[in-house]
Order: sequence, then C-alpha cells, then structure tokens
Amino acid sequence: MSLVVVGSVAYDGVETPHGTVERMLGGACTYVSLAASFFTEAAVVAVVGDDFAPEDTRLLASHGIDLAGLERVPGQTFFWSGVYSPDMNDRTTLRTDLNVFAGFNPKLPEHYRSQPYLLLGNIQPSLQRSVREQMTAPRLVGGDTMNYWISDFKDELLAALKDWDFLLVNDSEARQLSGQHNLRRAAQAIFDMGPHTVVIKRGEYGAVLFRPEGHFIVPGYLLEDVFDPTGAGDSFAGGFFGYMASRGLDIKDDTAIPEIRRAVIYGSVMGSFCCEQFGVDRFRTLTRAEIDARFNEFKEFTCF
Amino acid sequence: MSLVVVGSVAYDGVETPHGTVERMLGGACTYVSLAASFFTEAAVVAVVGDDFAPEDTRLLASHGIDLAGLERVPGQTFFWSGVYSPDMNDRTTLRTDLNVFAGFNPKLPEHYRSQPYLLLGNIQPSLQRSVREQMTAPRLVGGDTMNYWISDFKDELLAALKDWDFLLVNDSEARQLSGQHNLRRAAQAIFDMGPHTVVIKRGEYGAVLFRPEGHFIVPGYLLEDVFDPTGAGDSFAGGFFGYMASRGLDIKDDTAIPEIRRAVIYGSVMGSFCCEQFGVDRFRTLTRAEIDARFNEFKEFTCF
Repeated sequence: MSLVVVGSVAYDGVETPHGTVERMLGGACTYVSLAASFFTEAAVVAVVGDDFAPEDTRLLASHGIDLAGLERVPGQTFFWSGVYSPDMNDRTTLRTDLNVFAGFNPKLPEHYRSQPYLLLGNIQPSLQRSVREQMTAPRLVGGDTMNYWISDFKDELLAALKDWDFLLVNDSEARQLSGQHNLRRAAQAIFDMGPHTVVIKRGEYGAVLFRPEGHFIVPGYLLEDVFDPTGAGDSFAGGFFGYMASRGLDIKDDTAIPEIRRAVIYGSVMGSFCCEQFGVDRFRTLTRAEIDARFNEFKEFTCF
Repeated sequence: MSLVVVGSVAYDGVETPHGTVERMLGGACTYVSLAASFFTEAAVVAVVGDDFAPEDTRLLASHGIDLAGLERVPGQTFFWSGVYSPDMNDRTTLRTDLNVFAGFNPKLPEHYRSQPYLLLGNIQPSLQRSVREQMTAPRLVGGDTMNYWISDFKDELLAALKDWDFLLVNDSEARQLSGQHNLRRAAQAIFDMGPHTVVIKRGEYGAVLFRPEGHFIVPGYLLEDVFDPTGAGDSFAGGFFGYMASRGLDIKDDTAIPEIRRAVIYGSVMGSFCCEQFGVDRFRTLTRAEIDARFNEFKEFTCF
C-alpha cells in the first residue's frame, strides 16, 4: 500500500573525512521515499526549483516513486551544506538556502488523499497539520520534527502532534520536546502529547521503539567505514514505515508487535546502508537481497 | 570454580544529581568481586589501610568472598572522590589519594595460585603481569586497563596484554589503545596484541563482544533512574566473568558461544543494578531471582 511522504527535496554539499561533494541530491523526503521504495510504493509531496536535474527526477521515478506531488516552481532548489567532525558524530552547517522551500505550501494530488500511510517529514508544524487534514482517513500517520520547531513553534507542534500515531525523532529532540533527559520518561511524556508510539533514533547506537506496553531496543549496525551519515535518520524512517506499509500494519495493533519490531530492524538496515556511500548513492545499486541479508545479520549479532 | 580478582579496594566520595555520599566502600576489586559472587566463588587480591571498616570486611565475607589475599597495612585506604554531570555521562575527579595503594605489590596466597580464572583489574601493567606469573596455569585470564597506563606505560601494558585471553575496556580506551576510532578496526588491532576476545563497554549504550568469528552487541538497559553509575563497568566485568567461571567456560571454545553471549548479558544485568543505588548498596539486597528476571527482560526487549 502507498506511503505518502512530505518533506524537503534538496541539494546538499558535504565534507566528510572521506572527501567532499559540492552538490548532490538530498533532503528528508528524498531519503525517506528512496528507502521506502524498496518495500512499498512511495508518493512524494515536495517542491523543487527549475534547477532540479532531470537525472534526479529519473532516479526517483526509477524507484517507482509517484512524483505527482513534486511541485516545480521558478527559482533554486533548497540547498544545505555542512562539514562533519573527524569521528562523524558532529556536523557543522555551513549554508542553508531555503530558496523555493521558503514558500512551500504542500497541496496533495487528489489520488494521494485516500492513501493509508502518511509520513510527515520535518517541516513547519502547521504545514504538517495542513497535509494531515488533506488526507481522507489515513490508517497510520507518523511524523518527525527538529530542535527549531520544538523551541520556536512549540504550540503549533503540539497541535499537529496530537493527531499523529507515532513520532520518530532522535534522542536529543525527544529530550528537548519532553523536558526529560531519561528516555523512558521522555517517551512517557510524549505519549501524553498524543502519539501511541515513539521511535527514538540514537545514531550509531541504534534505536528504541517505545509503546505503552514496553519497549524494544536495537543496537546500531557496526560499519567498518562510515562514509557519509547524511540522511541516515531519514533512511531509517523510510525503511521502518516502508516495511509497515508493505505489510499493511497498524501500529496500535498489539498482535502486530513482532512485525513492528521487524520494521525497526528494516529501518536500521536502511540507515546503515545509507552511510556506506555519499548521499543517496548506495540506494542506486542496493538490492532487496542485500537488505534481507543485513536483516539476518542483525538477528545474528543480537541473538542470545 | 573460583575467580581470582586483583584490583583496588577503596573508599569513594561521590556527588550525583541524587545526592552526595562523602565516604562509601568502592574500588574495582570490590565491585567485580561482589558482582561475581552472585555466580561463583570470588577471591580478592588487594590492599587496604588500618582504617578499613569491619562492616566492609563483613559485607565482602557475607558474599562468600575469599579475603585471604586482602592485605592490611598501616595507613589510609585508597580514596577517590568525584562529581557527576547532571546527565551523569561525565564525571570530574575531585581527589585521588592513593595512600596504601601506592605501595601495592600483590602477593597471591598459596591456595589462589591453582585457581582457573583470573581477572586483572585496572592496576600498573607490570603488577598485572606479576600476578599472572604467580598463577600456575589459569584456564582463562582477562584484564582491564585505563587511559593513564595506555599513554604512559604502553610497553609494559603490551607485555602484559599478550598473555591475556580477553581484554575488557570501555570504548574510549579501546580507541586509545588501538589508535582506531572505528570499533571493529579497534578490536582487530587489539586481537593482534594477543587477546582472543575483546569486550567493549559503552556505558549507557551497552557492550560489544568481539571475537575472531564475529561480534555480539547488547544494548544498555534503560533504567528510569540512574542513581550512581560508579562501579557499573566493574560490576559488568564481575557479572560477565563470574558467569563464565560458574559454567566452567573457555572463551576460545566456539561451541560455548551461546553461553559466552549469556555471560555478556549477565554482565549488563549486574552493571544496570549497580546504578540503582549509591556505591555497592544495591548488591546488599540483590537476589539471584532478581538477576534472572532482568536477564529475561533483556531477552524480551531485544528479541525479534
């Protein structure tokens, strides 16, 4: 079943200890939809400028991604650039040019509105809410956010969040949103804001799925080389939600817990592959067989 | 079977967000032997001053710990104090008074020498080597070390390390020793120094067991309250090696891998309990039934 993804489609410049790329395809919506496309049909809602390259459109289309919601307007595509620390655990933003993204006002194509799965990527919370309201009756709505919206748009974020089935954020965002350092307490506080489930990404340390009846922890995959971590969290989201959609799952269904745990593993698998090459490059050649082999590796190195 | 443990027996002063304790029983040898005592007979090699309190001797004895190797000399017992950051991920040392520990020259009682299991706690590497040489033919030797010995006593450490079956250190120590940031590469480099197995502790993020044929990752237990992390790493070591000893395991035996993985879990269990109260207090009341219940919790929150 189709997964509708809203968020940024962008160009990124990154510098890691492995090299520098001045301009490559990026953006949360790009990573989420590409990662999800290995499991299900993805449909994007985003805006790009008239500089958006035909080969980038072709890459998305070649993954079966529905581009009816990819709006093209005059101007430049959102551009971000950053440099990673030698251990790649920190990064410094060098440039953020919102460009056409500054005027983004997502409008869902008619055939998107009845789709069952919706991922609200990290954009202005009232735009997330507007997208949610354009959907007829989605079975499952999940969303991401970031420090800027939590600190400066808290009311809008809380108004959007109360209608989400799950929140998918990193640990520092969960702490900032909840005001709780302890992750268990942070998840409890976020349950009270609306979401039934909270998925907390911990970068190289993996992820935790919190649900009212308990939690599930997956450690991070130990890569021998982290080439470029850009987009790993969004690829996690795509793998997680893509697998959920492919199985037609409802996150509130306790009988689906074994499948939901597998979705967390598939998220982790996609996040780990993302780091193996610059930008989205690993997804150009990745196969479902490689994905399933790594899923089995997770079983092997965590099983006791 | 008995596990001989050499290391510090000390008094600690700690300040955490939960309160301040000016003086409490501590030291690596104390935590290791207490944690191990829930699984096997532990025998300590350490030195204390004439201020060492009878109730502290009684606590160790009440856990069946062999104190024949606990030397008492005139003077004050090793004292350390420190203060934890609000999130307890960092601590600052306020005082380190080596006192009688400065002259520590471990001599093993005769009946210790034929024991099969030896844990060399974090002391001067040439003393670790001397203790190893006093043992007749131990089945399994493991050791710990720290940044100071790695930077200033590298040759002595490498000379000691080549005879160890496993090294048990935290991630920053593994990186410093190997010169490799990536943990997989760090473990490979340490294999070349002698140890067959490398156990890397990652604090709240758990631990990784590296062996030539592959690795096993366990995430950290998510406590709702971390009361005092002092001694958690040593309690991990005690649980890990104590369980190994209780089952008569050889770490180089590939058929024992399922049991060795369970030992990593028992280490994690003991490390998590240690954080629940100040110092060794949690071990005063802890039961084997509670330990096994938490072991099962690890299965529950990692299984998929």
